[in-house]
Amino acid sequence: MADAPEVGIIVGSESDRETMSAAVAELDAREIPSEFVVLSAHRNPQEVAAWTSSAAERGLLVIIAGAGMAAALPGVVAAHTDLPVIGVPLISAKSPLAGVDALLSIVQMPPGVPVACVSIGGARNAAVLAARIVALTRT
Amino acid sequence: MADAPEVGIIVGSESDRETMSAAVAELDAREIPSEFVVLSAHRNPQEVAAWTSSAAERGLLVIIAGAGMAAALPGVVAAHTDLPVIGVPLISAKSPLAGVDALLSIVQMPPGVPVACVSIGGARNAAVLAARIVALTRT
Amino acid sequence: MADAPEVGIIVGSESDRETMSAAVAELDAREIPSEFVVLSAHRNPQEVAAWTSSAAERGLLVIIAGAGMAAALPGVVAAHTDLPVIGVPLISAKSPLAGVDALLSIVQMPPGVPVACVSIGGARNAAVLAARIVALTRT
Amino acid sequence: MADAPEVGIIVGSESDRETMSAAVAELDAREIPSEFVVLSAHRNPQEVAAWTSSAAERGLLVIIAGAGMAAALPGVVAAHTDLPVIGVPLISAKSPLAGVDALLSIVQMPPGVPVACVSIGGARNAAVLAARIVALTRT
Amino acid sequence: MADAPEVGIIVGSESDRETMSAAVAELDAREIPSEFVVLSAHRNPQEVAAWTSSAAERGLLVIIAGAGMAAALPGVVAAHTDLPVIGVPLISAKSPLAGVDALLSIVQMPPGVPVACVSIGGARNAAVLAARIVALTRT
Amino acid sequence: MADAPEVGIIVGSESDRETMSAAVAELDAREIPSEFVVLSAHRNPQEVAAWTSSAAERGLLVIIAGAGMAAALPGVVAAHTDLPVIGVPLISAKSPLAGVDALLSIVQMPPGVPVACVSIGGARNAAVLAARIVALTRT
Amino acid sequence: MADAPEVGIIVGSESDRETMSAAVAELDAREIPSEFVVLSAHRNPQEVAAWTSSAAERGLLVIIAGAGMAAALPGVVAAHTDLPVIGVPLISAKSPLAGVDALLSIVQMPPGVPVACVSIGGARNAAVLAARIVALTRT
Amino acid sequence: MADAPEVGIIVGSESDRETMSAAVAELDAREIPSEFVVLSAHRNPQEVAAWTSSAAERGLLVIIAGAGMAAALPGVVAAHTDLPVIGVPLISAKSPLAGVDALLSIVQMPPGVPVACVSIGGARNAAVLAARIVALTRT
Repeated sequence: MADAPEVGIIVGSESDRETMSAAVAELDAREIPSEFVVLSAHRNPQEVAAWTSSAAERGLLVIIAGAGMAAALPGVVAAHTDLPVIGVPLISAKSPLAGVDALLSIVQMPPGVPVACVSIGGARNAAVLAARIVALTRT
Repeated sequence: MADAPEVGIIVGSESDRETMSAAVAELDAREIPSEFVVLSAHRNPQEVAAWTSSAAERGLLVIIAGAGMAAALPGVVAAHTDLPVIGVPLISAKSPLAGVDALLSIVQMPPGVPVACVSIGGARNAAVLAARIVALTRT
Repeated sequence: MADAPEVGIIVGSESDRETMSAAVAELDAREIPSEFVVLSAHRNPQEVAAWTSSAAERGLLVIIAGAGMAAALPGVVAAHTDLPVIGVPLISAKSPLAGVDALLSIVQMPPGVPVACVSIGGARNAAVLAARIVALTRT
Repeated sequence: MADAPEVGIIVGSESDRETMSAAVAELDAREIPSEFVVLSAHRNPQEVAAWTSSAAERGLLVIIAGAGMAAALPGVVAAHTDLPVIGVPLISAKSPLAGVDALLSIVQMPPGVPVACVSIGGARNAAVLAARIVALTRT
Repeated sequence: MADAPEVGIIVGSESDRETMSAAVAELDAREIPSEFVVLSAHRNPQEVAAWTSSAAERGLLVIIAGAGMAAALPGVVAAHTDLPVIGVPLISAKSPLAGVDALLSIVQMPPGVPVACVSIGGARNAAVLAARIVALTRT
Repeated sequence: MADAPEVGIIVGSESDRETMSAAVAELDAREIPSEFVVLSAHRNPQEVAAWTSSAAERGLLVIIAGAGMAAALPGVVAAHTDLPVIGVPLISAKSPLAGVDALLSIVQMPPGVPVACVSIGGARNAAVLAARIVALTRT
Repeated sequence: MADAPEVGIIVGSESDRETMSAAVAELDAREIPSEFVVLSAHRNPQEVAAWTSSAAERGLLVIIAGAGMAAALPGVVAAHTDLPVIGVPLISAKSPLAGVDALLSIVQMPPGVPVACVSIGGARNAAVLAARIVALTRT
Repeated sequence: MADAPEVGIIVGSESDRETMSAAVAELDAREIPSEFVVLSAHRNPQEVAAWTSSAAERGLLVIIAGAGMAAALPGVVAAHTDLPVIGVPLISAKSPLAGVDALLSIVQMPPGVPVACVSIGGARNAAVLAARIVALTRT
C-alpha cells in the first residue's frame, strides 16, 4: 500500500504540470509521499476550496501551489487551510512577463495569510523547503 | 424606497474604503444605485464566494472589485459570476510597490476568466466604465 | 443575411490581426456577430474618429481595441464613444518590451475616459469580457 | 504687437501647466515667441486635432506636448501635423508610476509617426531642443 | 523560567529591528517563544555562521531572517542549517528601490537551498508562517 | 557630385550598423543626403568630439546618434554641438536588458543638454523626425 | 604641506556635492588624501577630458565619479584614463526614477571600458572600495 | 614554473564557467596570472570563506566573483577579505530575469562592504578592471 501523501502539490493549469514535476521528483528522491492535482483558482474555485479545506484531515503537512500570470492559487489555498503553503511563481506561455506577474501575485500577500514564495520556476526548491518542514515533524 | 443596487463594489480591506468612495460618488452623480462591501479574498473566502454567486440574482449588473498587493479579489470574484467584473489596483500602505503588484495581479488573468482592469487607484474610472455598461441595458 | 455586428474589433496594424483573431473566434463560438477593422490611431486618426463616432449608431454594443507599443488606440477610441471599450495590450515585433509599454499606455487612462484593460495578448479574454457585457443586454 | 508664436506648447491637463511653465520661461529667455494651450487627447480630441492641423499654417515651427499617465497627447499631435513634435512625459498626481507610464506612452511610437521624447518632467530641455530646431530656420 | 525559543529571528542591521518587531509581537501573541539577534551576513559572517549552525541544537524549529538591499542574510542562513528559513525583504533607508533589491536577493535562491520569501516588509506574515510550521510539530 | 550631407548618423559600434541602416534608407527615400560614421563615446572620445564639433560647419542640420547599453553617445554628441540631436536606444547583443538601459541612458538627459529620444530600435522614426526638422529649413 | 591627492572625486553637478561628501569623509578617516571637482560630462566635456587625462600624472590612483539621471560621467572618465574608475549612481531631484536611470547608465558599460559601480547613493562604499585599491599600492 | 596568480576568479556554479572564461582570456592576453574556482556561497559556504580568507596571503591582488540569481557570492567574498572584489552579475538558465536579480544582489551592497559591480555578463570588463587595479601595483 502506498504511503499517505504528506505534501500536496496543486497547479493551476495542465501546462504547469511539467515544470512542477521537478517537485515531485525531489520529494520522491527524499521518500516523501505526495499527491498532485490540477485545479485553477479562477476556473475551479469550489474544487480548490474543497481540496484545500480537507488537506489537513487527509494527512497533508505542507501544500505546494504553483501558478502563472495573476497567480491567485497559492493565496487562495492559504486562505482555506492553516497548513504552511509554498508558492511557486511559474512562467506561462500566455504571459510575456517572465514570471514577474506571478511572483508579485504570490509573494505580496496581505497580513494574516502568508505564502512561502520560492524563486520563479523554483519547483525543486519548493520541494526541498517542504522537506525541511516535513523533517521537523519526524524528530 | 431606495432603488435596488445595479453596481456592486467590493474591496479587500477597510483601508481601501476611502479610495473606492470615489467610485460611489461617481455612480451617485449618475444616479446609478450601488452597494458597497468589505470582504477579503484571503481572509473571507466563503463570504466573497457567497456575495458574488448571488450578485446577478440580487439584480447587480456590474461588479467593481478593488484590492491592493497580491490583489486576488477581482479575479476570485470573476470566478464566481458571469457578470462583467471591473478591477481597480489599489496602492496599499503595506506595500511599497506603488500598486504595480496589484496591477499585475489583476490585469494578467488567465484565459476564460477576464477582469476589466482600470488604472492604479482608478476608482472613478471604474465607475465611469460601469456606467457605460449599465447604460447599454437601458436603451 | 448576416446579423448586424454587436462587437467592433479594431487594431492598429495589420500585424496585430493574427493575435486578435482569437477574439473573433471566441465571439463566433458564442454566436455574437462582430466586425473587424485595421486603423491606426497615429496613421489614420480621422478614420479612427469616424469609425468610432458612428459605432453606437451602427449597433455596436462594445468595442475591443488592440494595439502595441505606445498603444494610444484604445484610449482614442474611448474618447470618441460612450460605449464600453476593452483594450488589449499587444506584443509588437517592433518593441522589445514584451507588451509592458502597451499595457501602461492602455491601463493608465486619466479620469473620465476609462478603458477596460485585459492581459497582454489577452484577445480571447477581451472577447469573453465583451460577451459578459453583451449578455446583460439580452435579459 | 506681439510676435507670432513659433513654438506651440500643449498639455493634457490644467495640472500640467505648472511643470510646463519651465518651457515657456526657457523660450522667453531665448526670445522665442510661444503659445500655450490645455487640451486633452482623451477629453478634447476634436479640439486637439483642430489646433494641431492648423499649427503649421499659423506659423508654428515646433510643437511641445506634455502629458502624464497614458500620455497619448504627443503621439496624437504628431499624427495631425508634419512639424517636429517634442514629447514631455509628466509625473501625474493621479499615477504612482513616477512618469514611467508616460515615458513609455510617448517614446515607444510606432514607425512613421515619431515623437522626440525628453526626460520625465523635462520641460526645460524640451524648450532647449525646440530652440535648437528653431535656430536652424534662422541661418 | 522562560521557554526555550522555537523561532529565531535574525536581522542584518539595527535599523531593521523596528520593522521586525512585528514578527516578535505576532509570535508572542501566539505564545511561541522566540529569540532575536542582529548580525550582518556581510559584516559578521562568522557570527552568522556560528549562530545558524547551532540553531537546531539549541531547539529552534524555524528561522526568520530579515534584510534589506543586497539581502544575502536569508540565503546565507539557509546555507548553514537544514531548518526552514523564512526571508523578509526589508525596505532600507539606504536604498531607494522600495525593497525590490531585497526581494530579488531573497526569493531568487538557486536550486538546493530554498528560502521561504514573504512580502516586502512582511514581518507579521513571516511570524504567521512560522507559527503554521511550528504547529505541525505539536500535533 | 553628391550633395553635401544634411543629416549625420553616428553609432557606437559596428554591430549597430545594420539596425541604423533603416535610418539611411528612410533618408535616401526622402532624398535627404546623409553621412554615416562609427565612433564610440567610450573608445573614441576625441574622434567623437572632433566629428561633432565640426558638424554644423560641415553643413549638417541634424545628428542621429544610436547606441546600446550605457548609451552615452547621444548625450556626448549633444554636449559638443548646438544642432538638434536625435538619440536611438539600441538593443545590444551584449546586454539582456532589451534596450531599457540604453533608453534611460539617452532620454534622462540633465537640464540644458537635450536629446530627442525615439523608440528602442527606432532607426526609421529617427530619420522621419530628422526629415521633419530638415523640412523646416526649406520653406 | 598637504599630501598629494591619491583619490580624485568628480561629480556632475553642485547638487551632488552633499551626497558625495560621505566619500570624502570616509577617505579622510582613512587618511587617504583626495581632491574634489564638479564637472559635467554634458556641460563641461572639455574640462572633464582635461582633468581626467592628467589624473595619473598628477598622482591619482583611483577616480570616483558620481552622477545622476543619464549618468555618462563615470564612463566618460573611464574613457580618458587607465586608472580604475568607481561609479556612484546618484538620486537626482530632477529624476523620479530613484537612481535606476543612473545605475543602468553606469553599470552597463560596453566591453573594454569598465566602470566599477557601487550601490545607488553609495558614496561611502565607493571610498571604502577606493581604499581597498589604494592599500594594494602600499604593501 | 607558472607565475603565482594575481587575480582570483570565483563563480557560483559550473554553468557559469563558460561566461567567465572571457575574463580568463582577457587576463591571459594581458599576461596577468589568474586562478579559477567554482564554489557556491549557498552550497559551499565554508569553502568560500576559507578560499577567500587566505586570498591575500596567497598573493592575490583582486578577486572577480561571478554569480547569477540571488547572487550572494561577490558580497560574501567581500565580507571575508580586504582585497578589492569585482562582481559580475550572470544570466542564469534557471532565472528568467535576464540577470536583473543578480545585478541588484551584487550592486546594492550595504555600507562598509563594497563590491565593484560591472555589467550583466561583463566578464571581460571585470578582467579589464582587474588589470587597471593590478597595474597600480607595478609602477
